Amino acid sequence: MSIRVGIVGYGNLGRGIENAVNSSKDMELVAVFTRRDPNALKIATKTATVCNINDALSMKDEIDVMIMCGGSATDLPVQTPEFAKNFNVVDSFDTHARIPEHFNNVDIAAKASGKTGIISVGWDPGMFSLNRLYGEAILPFGKTYTFWGKGVSQGHSDAIRRIDGVVDAKQYTVPYDEALDAVRNGENPELSTREKHWRECFVVAEEGADKERIEKEIKTMPNYFDEYNTVVHFITKEELDKNHSGIPHGGVVIRSGKTGENEENTHIIEYKLKLDSNPEFTASVITAYARACYRLNKEGNVGCKTVFDIAPSYLLDMENRDIVKKFL
Amino acid sequence: MSIRVGIVGYGNLGRGIENAVNSSKDMELVAVFTRRDPNALKIATKTATVCNINDALSMKDEIDVMIMCGGSATDLPVQTPEFAKNFNVVDSFDTHARIPEHFNNVDIAAKASGKTGIISVGWDPGMFSLNRLYGEAILPFGKTYTFWGKGVSQGHSDAIRRIDGVVDAKQYTVPYDEALDAVRNGENPELSTREKHWRECFVVAEEGADKERIEKEIKTMPNYFDEYNTVVHFITKEELDKNHSGIPHGGVVIRSGKTGENEENTHIIEYKLKLDSNPEFTASVITAYARACYRLNKEGNVGCKTVFDIAPSYLLDMENRDIVKKFL
Repeated sequence: MSIRVGIVGYGNLGRGIENAVNSSKDMELVAVFTRRDPNALKIATKTATVCNINDALSMKDEIDVMIMCGGSATDLPVQTPEFAKNFNVVDSFDTHARIPEHFNNVDIAAKASGKTGIISVGWDPGMFSLNRLYGEAILPFGKTYTFWGKGVSQGHSDAIRRIDGVVDAKQYTVPYDEALDAVRNGENPELSTREKHWRECFVVAEEGADKERIEKEIKTMPNYFDEYNTVVHFITKEELDKNHSGIPHGGVVIRSGKTGENEENTHIIEYKLKLDSNPEFTASVITAYARACYRLNKEGNVGCKTVFDIAPSYLLDMENRDIVKKFL
Repeated sequence: MSIRVGIVGYGNLGRGIENAVNSSKDMELVAVFTRRDPNALKIATKTATVCNINDALSMKDEIDVMIMCGGSATDLPVQTPEFAKNFNVVDSFDTHARIPEHFNNVDIAAKASGKTGIISVGWDPGMFSLNRLYGEAILPFGKTYTFWGKGVSQGHSDAIRRIDGVVDAKQYTVPYDEALDAVRNGENPELSTREKHWRECFVVAEEGADKERIEKEIKTMPNYFDEYNTVVHFITKEELDKNHSGIPHGGVVIRSGKTGENEENTHIIEYKLKLDSNPEFTASVITAYARACYRLNKEGNVGCKTVFDIAPSYLLDMENRDIVKKFL
């Protein structure tokens, strides 16, 4: 029997989950839950229904895992613990400072209901987190570096769009090759924020807008740009749509460590992602962990978990014996 | 209290384990077991004893995990199941075709004794295996590639040394850049053995030896060289000792997968190792898994395991709460 999946929230991530679930032989999408008018929402899966989010409870017995696709700012902190009262849940909560609090809320709800939750799944947090852990566990003496990009930051793109006189914008986060090279060479450099990444912005301005002012507002924007070197290109809407419509991303986690009686040997572990679609890849990771969530709950392993708590074999729909033969 | 570790076999790997254990705050090396005369064996750790391998049983209650550092050809298939009758054990068994049989033997012994064994730990099998699994779990539609090198193959170096007229030799396995580039570009090429790697040999010949014959014997050697493009350099013993005394290795696992309704998006996951010392890095991985082995056994989780069965958090001596804060 298939694992019956529900999706809460149908944006880029929700659509990615739909695709990943339909690509998984052992899973079946049952329903999409939305705050919008269900009749107005068209989904790709003909065999699944669209429901109002307030009707989710009525499908309690028809859904094995609920995948939470809302935003980390206001949706997930409320929705994931709430849904954990009745469903196994997986989310991609990524507000780092609030993870312990979120973990605790989901843990209490899931333990009370006998359900299982896995939070903060994706690539960062997620696969990058795993590689930071593996790296430090294997090479306790060393330094870990995380670089992001080249890729689109939705948050930074949105911040530019809010500037007066801006029609549309796309921001790429780009790591410095010099910094990457130094880390890969085992030099263990100390790198400031400004030395690790720079920001490249493609901006469509209103006709007659003061481009000098816009560029200055971008480059001095606190938290978003002021700590970085930023390059601003003004382009036409047509150029933006033609050359910058995708949502690529990626990055790299590098552990640079030493072994030997006198720490004479250097080892570099590098985990690198190059993604054509950030939301589709994130959805692919979440879907694999939804499988693990279902299986853990079946074994009576309830409460809140993270990627660190999940044995890798739980991610695959395969017998252990076959996993050993194929992958070891 | 520290995890008390024993080492069986004191070659390159055993010495690497000794170093890694001494670098771990929560571990303590108790004894090294050898087939040689214990009085003739000097180890680096002053607080540990050297014992004959036949006296291991008498230290049953003083050792929490035994790390098996013999060879895969004849030592481990016998020793690991035998020691699992009385000890928690970790090994790096790497004869791929015999892993299921070895797993079974260790599993039976460990279940009967209430001990825990983790087999085939290192980087391949080991971390590379994990990344093959993670890659396929996340991106079910795609292709996985493993490249080794540039690095020293001990087996191939030994094979050259056995040729008549050869004093000493070192063989490097080297991946083709063109093959790597094609995979990284998402081209999903079909690659033959010859197209993935080539072999570079540095050979010291006896004075007056027929170098042409030696080179031909190397290049046509079945299983070792005949399926590869091989380059042979004759050098002096001094050059070999000066420039080729290390045991570096490394390699890369790449998963190239597609997502999207029409598989229109390509994602590349790359896990890359660049290691100054193959045995020291392997030892570092094994030591982290020895910690997991001890902890699993304490929880009553007995029998034979592989890296696929171990939740990542078991590799670190840290509270889950702190792991989440630091790595997620």
